[in-house]
Amino acid sequence: MASSRSIGLRPIGFVQTEASNEELKHRLARSKIVVDRRLSIGLQGIGGFSHIYVLYWMHKMSESDRKVLRVHPRHRLCLPQQGVFATRSQYRPNPIGLTIAKLLRRTGNVLTVQGLDAIDGTPVLDLKPYDCWDRLDGIRVPEWWKGLEREKRRD
Amino acid sequence: MASSRSIGLRPIGFVQTEASNEELKHRLARSKIVVDRRLSIGLQGIGGFSHIYVLYWMHKMSESDRKVLRVHPRHRLCLPQQGVFATRSQYRPNPIGLTIAKLLRRTGNVLTVQGLDAIDGTPVLDLKPYDCWDRLDGIRVPEWWKGLEREKRRD
Repeated sequence: MASSRSIGLRPIGFVQTEASNEELKHRLARSKIVVDRRLSIGLQGIGGFSHIYVLYWMHKMSESDRKVLRVHPRHRLCLPQQGVFATRSQYRPNPIGLTIAKLLRRTGNVLTVQGLDAIDGTPVLDLKPYDCWDRLDGIRVPEWWKGLEREKRRD
Repeated sequence: MASSRSIGLRPIGFVQTEASNEELKHRLARSKIVVDRRLSIGLQGIGGFSHIYVLYWMHKMSESDRKVLRVHPRHRLCLPQQGVFATRSQYRPNPIGLTIAKLLRRTGNVLTVQGLDAIDGTPVLDLKPYDCWDRLDGIRVPEWWKGLEREKRRD
Protein backbone atom coordinates (compact mmCIF):
# COMPACT_ATOMS: atom_id res chain seq x y z
CA MET A 1 0.00 0.00 0.00
CA ALA A 2 1.05 3.56 -0.59
CA SER A 3 0.93 4.54 3.08
CA SER A 4 0.23 3.16 6.50
CA ARG A 5 0.39 6.56 8.19
CA SER A 6 -1.83 6.76 11.26
CA ILE A 7 -4.88 9.05 11.29
CA GLY A 8 -5.69 10.91 14.52
CA LEU A 9 -9.25 11.42 15.75
CA ARG A 10 -10.53 13.04 18.91
CA PRO A 11 -13.84 12.13 20.56
CA ILE A 12 -16.51 14.80 20.07
CA GLY A 13 -18.37 13.41 23.09
CA PHE A 14 -19.27 10.28 25.01
CA VAL A 15 -22.25 7.94 25.40
CA GLN A 16 -24.03 7.76 28.75
CA THR A 17 -26.42 4.88 29.30
CA GLU A 18 -27.62 2.61 32.08
CA ALA A 19 -29.00 0.03 29.65
CA SER A 20 -27.92 -3.61 29.83
CA ASN A 21 -26.05 -5.26 26.99
CA GLU A 22 -29.25 -7.15 26.13
CA GLU A 23 -31.26 -3.91 25.85
CA LEU A 24 -28.51 -2.33 23.75
CA LYS A 25 -28.40 -5.33 21.42
CA HIS A 26 -32.14 -5.20 20.82
CA ARG A 27 -31.95 -1.47 20.09
CA LEU A 28 -34.50 -0.64 22.78
CA ALA A 29 -32.31 1.52 24.97
CA ARG A 30 -32.44 5.23 25.52
CA SER A 31 -29.01 6.79 25.78
CA LYS A 32 -27.50 10.21 26.06
CA ILE A 33 -24.76 11.56 23.86
CA VAL A 34 -22.92 14.20 25.85
CA VAL A 35 -21.11 16.37 23.33
CA ASP A 36 -18.05 18.42 24.28
CA ARG A 37 -19.44 21.83 25.29
CA ARG A 38 -16.92 23.57 23.04
CA LEU A 39 -18.60 21.86 20.06
CA SER A 40 -22.24 22.59 21.08
CA ILE A 41 -22.70 25.08 18.28
CA GLY A 42 -22.12 22.22 15.81
CA LEU A 43 -25.44 20.74 16.97
CA GLN A 44 -27.47 23.75 15.82
CA GLY A 45 -30.38 22.55 13.69
CA ILE A 46 -29.89 18.85 14.37
CA GLY A 47 -33.33 18.72 16.00
CA GLY A 48 -34.91 19.09 12.55
CA PHE A 49 -33.95 15.51 11.77
CA SER A 50 -35.75 12.55 13.29
CA HIS A 51 -32.80 10.16 12.90
CA ILE A 52 -29.04 10.52 12.97
CA TYR A 53 -26.04 8.37 12.17
CA VAL A 54 -23.84 7.96 15.21
CA LEU A 55 -20.23 7.05 14.45
CA TYR A 56 -18.42 5.84 17.53
CA TRP A 57 -15.20 4.20 18.60
CA MET A 58 -15.53 0.68 20.00
CA HIS A 59 -12.93 1.35 22.66
CA LYS A 60 -13.05 -2.09 24.27
CA MET A 61 -11.59 -3.78 21.19
CA SER A 62 -7.92 -4.69 21.65
CA GLU A 63 -5.08 -4.58 19.12
CA SER A 64 -5.47 -8.35 18.63
CA ASP A 65 -9.25 -7.96 18.11
CA ARG A 66 -8.35 -5.54 15.28
CA LYS A 67 -6.41 -8.31 13.53
CA VAL A 68 -9.44 -10.63 13.21
CA LEU A 69 -10.44 -10.72 9.52
CA ARG A 70 -13.17 -13.40 9.45
CA VAL A 71 -16.03 -14.13 11.83
CA HIS A 72 -19.04 -16.40 12.10
CA PRO A 73 -22.02 -14.04 11.56
CA ARG A 74 -23.54 -13.17 14.96
CA HIS A 75 -21.31 -15.82 16.59
CA ARG A 76 -23.28 -18.65 14.93
CA LEU A 77 -20.74 -21.42 14.55
CA CYS A 78 -23.15 -23.26 12.22
CA LEU A 79 -22.79 -20.46 9.65
CA PRO A 80 -19.69 -20.28 7.45
CA GLN A 81 -17.20 -17.54 8.33
CA GLN A 82 -17.46 -14.27 6.44
CA GLY A 83 -14.93 -11.49 5.99
CA VAL A 84 -15.40 -8.77 8.59
CA PHE A 85 -16.15 -6.19 5.88
CA ALA A 86 -19.15 -8.34 4.87
CA THR A 87 -20.54 -8.12 8.43
CA ARG A 88 -21.33 -5.45 11.02
CA SER A 89 -19.13 -7.29 13.56
CA GLN A 90 -17.24 -5.25 16.11
CA TYR A 91 -14.07 -7.12 15.05
CA ARG A 92 -12.49 -5.04 12.28
CA PRO A 93 -9.20 -3.23 11.62
CA ASN A 94 -10.70 0.16 12.55
CA PRO A 95 -13.44 -0.60 15.10
CA ILE A 96 -15.76 2.25 14.16
CA GLY A 97 -19.39 1.60 15.08
CA LEU A 98 -22.13 2.98 12.83
CA THR A 99 -25.71 3.06 14.10
CA ILE A 100 -28.81 4.95 13.06
CA ALA A 101 -30.47 6.29 16.22
CA LYS A 102 -33.77 8.04 16.72
CA LEU A 103 -33.18 11.56 18.00
CA LEU A 104 -35.67 12.20 20.79
CA ARG A 105 -34.43 15.47 22.23
CA ARG A 106 -31.60 17.96 22.30
CA THR A 107 -30.94 19.91 25.49
CA GLY A 108 -27.87 22.12 25.07
CA ASN A 109 -24.92 19.82 24.45
CA VAL A 110 -26.84 16.64 25.33
CA LEU A 111 -28.76 14.51 22.81
CA THR A 112 -31.23 11.88 24.01
CA VAL A 113 -31.46 9.05 21.49
CA GLN A 114 -33.15 5.70 21.12
CA GLY A 115 -31.68 2.60 19.50
CA LEU A 116 -28.00 3.32 19.94
CA ASP A 117 -26.12 0.08 20.67
CA ALA A 118 -22.95 1.67 22.07
CA ILE A 119 -22.02 0.86 25.69
CA ASP A 120 -21.69 3.43 28.48
CA GLY A 121 -18.54 5.52 28.10
CA THR A 122 -18.15 4.96 24.35
CA PRO A 123 -16.29 7.81 22.59
CA VAL A 124 -18.39 9.38 19.81
CA LEU A 125 -16.52 10.39 16.63
CA ASP A 126 -19.18 12.07 14.50
CA LEU A 127 -22.92 12.67 14.06
CA LYS A 128 -24.60 13.02 10.66
CA PRO A 129 -28.24 13.48 9.74
CA TYR A 130 -30.08 10.56 8.12
CA ASP A 131 -31.91 11.73 5.01
CA CYS A 132 -33.94 10.34 2.12
CA TRP A 133 -30.79 9.50 0.12
CA ASP A 134 -29.85 6.97 2.80
CA ARG A 135 -33.03 5.01 2.20
CA LEU A 136 -32.37 2.63 -0.69
CA ASP A 137 -34.85 0.52 -2.62
CA GLY A 138 -34.13 -2.81 -4.28
CA ILE A 139 -31.11 -3.82 -2.25
CA ARG A 140 -29.66 -7.33 -2.29
CA VAL A 141 -28.34 -9.20 0.76
CA PRO A 142 -26.91 -12.75 0.99
CA GLU A 143 -28.88 -15.86 1.96
CA TRP A 144 -27.16 -16.26 5.35
CA TRP A 145 -28.28 -12.74 6.26
CA LYS A 146 -31.90 -13.45 5.29
CA GLY A 147 -31.82 -16.66 7.34
CA LEU A 148 -30.73 -14.82 10.49
CA GLU A 149 -33.47 -12.23 9.99
CA ARG A 150 -36.15 -14.91 9.59
CA GLU A 151 -35.00 -16.46 12.87
CA LYS A 152 -35.20 -13.10 14.61
CA ARG A 153 -38.79 -12.58 13.52
CA ARG A 154 -39.72 -15.99 14.98
CA ASP A 155 -38.29 -15.03 18.41
CA MET B 1 -14.90 16.41 28.83
CA ALA B 2 -13.53 13.31 30.49
CA SER B 3 -10.82 12.75 27.91
CA SER B 4 -9.31 14.24 24.79
CA ARG B 5 -7.07 11.23 24.14
CA SER B 6 -6.36 10.74 20.45
CA ILE B 7 -7.64 7.65 18.63
CA GLY B 8 -5.41 6.06 16.00
CA LEU B 9 -6.73 4.64 12.74
CA ARG B 10 -4.90 3.13 9.80
CA PRO B 11 -6.24 3.18 6.23
CA ILE B 12 -7.50 -0.23 5.08
CA GLY B 13 -7.09 0.89 1.47
CA PHE B 14 -7.35 3.81 -0.92
CA VAL B 15 -9.77 5.14 -3.54
CA GLN B 16 -8.71 5.18 -7.19
CA THR B 17 -10.80 7.23 -9.59
CA GLU B 18 -10.38 9.35 -12.69
CA ALA B 19 -13.76 11.05 -12.22
CA SER B 20 -14.05 14.83 -12.09
CA ASN B 21 -15.28 16.60 -8.97
CA GLU B 22 -18.57 17.26 -10.77
CA GLU B 23 -19.09 13.56 -11.54
CA LEU B 24 -18.21 12.64 -7.97
CA LYS B 25 -20.66 15.21 -6.61
CA HIS B 26 -23.50 13.86 -8.71
CA ARG B 27 -22.72 10.30 -7.58
CA LEU B 28 -22.30 9.09 -11.16
CA ALA B 29 -18.68 8.02 -10.96
CA ARG B 30 -17.25 4.55 -10.98
CA SER B 31 -14.32 4.18 -8.61
CA LYS B 32 -12.08 1.45 -7.34
CA ILE B 33 -11.36 0.75 -3.70
CA VAL B 34 -7.96 -0.92 -3.54
CA VAL B 35 -7.83 -2.72 -0.21
CA ASP B 36 -4.53 -3.57 1.48
CA ARG B 37 -3.69 -7.10 0.24
CA ARG B 38 -3.03 -8.24 3.79
CA LEU B 39 -6.71 -7.53 4.56
CA SER B 40 -8.18 -9.19 1.43
CA ILE B 41 -9.63 -12.06 3.44
CA GLY B 42 -11.82 -9.50 5.23
CA LEU B 43 -13.68 -8.98 1.93
CA GLN B 44 -14.85 -12.60 1.75
CA GLY B 45 -18.61 -12.66 1.14
CA ILE B 46 -18.96 -8.91 0.51
CA GLY B 47 -20.17 -9.65 -3.05
CA GLY B 48 -23.45 -10.94 -1.60
CA PHE B 49 -24.47 -7.36 -0.84
CA SER B 50 -25.55 -4.93 -3.54
CA HIS B 51 -24.60 -1.83 -1.54
CA ILE B 52 -21.96 -0.98 1.05
CA TYR B 53 -21.20 1.86 3.40
CA VAL B 54 -17.79 3.31 2.68
CA LEU B 55 -16.21 5.19 5.58
CA TYR B 56 -13.28 7.29 4.45
CA TRP B 57 -10.92 9.97 5.67
CA MET B 58 -11.28 13.38 4.00
CA HIS B 59 -7.53 13.89 3.97
CA LYS B 60 -7.58 17.30 2.29
CA MET B 61 -9.25 18.93 5.29
CA SER B 62 -6.81 20.99 7.35
CA GLU B 63 -6.63 21.44 11.12
CA SER B 64 -8.40 24.80 10.73
CA ASP B 65 -11.12 23.20 8.56
CA ARG B 66 -11.72 20.84 11.50
CA LYS B 67 -12.49 23.83 13.72
CA VAL B 68 -15.43 25.02 11.59
CA LEU B 69 -18.66 24.33 13.53
CA ARG B 70 -21.33 26.02 11.37
CA VAL B 71 -21.80 26.11 7.61
CA HIS B 72 -24.31 27.36 5.06
CA PRO B 73 -25.89 24.14 3.71
CA ARG B 74 -24.28 23.28 0.35
CA HIS B 75 -22.52 26.68 0.37
CA ARG B 76 -25.81 28.53 -0.18
CA LEU B 77 -25.29 31.87 1.50
CA CYS B 78 -29.02 32.55 1.27
CA LEU B 79 -29.70 29.72 3.71
CA PRO B 80 -29.10 30.21 7.44
CA GLN B 81 -26.04 28.53 8.88
CA GLN B 82 -26.46 25.12 10.46
CA GLY B 83 -24.27 23.23 12.88
CA VAL B 84 -21.94 20.86 11.05
CA PHE B 85 -23.51 17.84 12.81
CA ALA B 86 -26.84 18.80 11.19
CA THR B 87 -25.23 18.62 7.73
CA ARG B 88 -23.17 16.20 5.67
CA SER B 89 -20.54 18.92 5.14
CA GLN B 90 -16.90 17.92 4.86
CA TYR B 91 -16.15 20.51 7.54
CA ARG B 92 -16.35 18.72 10.89
CA PRO B 93 -14.08 17.95 13.86
CA ASN B 94 -13.37 14.41 12.58
CA PRO B 95 -13.68 14.59 8.78
CA ILE B 96 -14.96 11.06 8.23
CA GLY B 97 -16.93 10.67 5.00
CA LEU B 98 -19.84 8.23 4.91
CA THR B 99 -21.31 7.22 1.56
CA ILE B 100 -23.47 4.34 0.42
CA ALA B 101 -21.98 2.96 -2.80
CA LYS B 102 -23.28 0.36 -5.21
CA LEU B 103 -20.93 -2.61 -5.27
CA LEU B 104 -20.44 -3.62 -8.90
CA ARG B 105 -17.61 -6.13 -8.66
CA ARG B 106 -14.95 -7.59 -6.45
CA THR B 107 -11.73 -8.82 -8.03
CA GLY B 108 -9.31 -10.00 -5.35
CA ASN B 109 -8.49 -7.00 -3.19
CA VAL B 110 -10.15 -4.49 -5.53
CA LEU B 111 -13.79 -3.40 -5.32
CA THR B 112 -15.42 -1.53 -8.20
CA VAL B 113 -18.18 0.73 -6.92
CA GLN B 114 -20.58 3.34 -8.24
CA GLY B 115 -21.68 6.48 -6.46
CA LEU B 116 -18.73 7.01 -4.16
CA ASP B 117 -18.00 10.74 -3.82
CA ALA B 118 -14.45 10.41 -2.45
CA ILE B 119 -11.62 11.90 -4.51
CA ASP B 120 -8.69 9.96 -5.94
CA GLY B 121 -6.22 8.91 -3.25
CA THR B 122 -8.71 9.08 -0.37
CA PRO B 123 -7.81 6.74 2.52
CA VAL B 124 -10.60 4.26 3.30
CA LEU B 125 -11.25 3.48 6.99
CA ASP B 126 -13.94 0.80 6.91
CA LEU B 127 -16.51 -0.99 4.74
CA LYS B 128 -19.83 -2.26 6.05
CA PRO B 129 -22.73 -3.95 4.28
CA TYR B 130 -25.95 -1.97 3.81
CA ASP B 131 -28.93 -4.05 4.92
CA CYS B 132 -32.67 -3.75 5.41
CA TRP B 133 -32.25 -2.22 8.90
CA ASP B 134 -30.57 0.79 7.32
CA ARG B 135 -33.68 1.58 5.31
CA LEU B 136 -35.97 3.65 7.55
CA ASP B 137 -39.56 4.62 6.95
CA GLY B 138 -41.25 7.75 8.21
CA ILE B 139 -38.19 9.93 8.69
CA ARG B 140 -38.36 13.69 9.27
CA VAL B 141 -35.98 16.24 7.74
CA PRO B 142 -35.98 20.06 8.09
CA GLU B 143 -37.56 22.49 5.63
CA TRP B 144 -34.22 23.83 4.34
CA TRP B 145 -33.24 20.30 3.39
CA LYS B 146 -36.51 19.72 1.50
CA GLY B 147 -36.05 23.02 -0.35
CA LEU B 148 -32.60 22.03 -1.59
CA GLU B 149 -33.91 18.68 -2.78
CA ARG B 150 -36.79 20.29 -4.68
CA GLU B 151 -34.26 22.52 -6.46
CA LYS B 152 -32.12 19.52 -7.38
CA ARG B 153 -35.06 17.77 -9.01
CA ARG B 154 -35.73 20.85 -11.14
CA ASP B 155 -32.10 20.83 -12.46
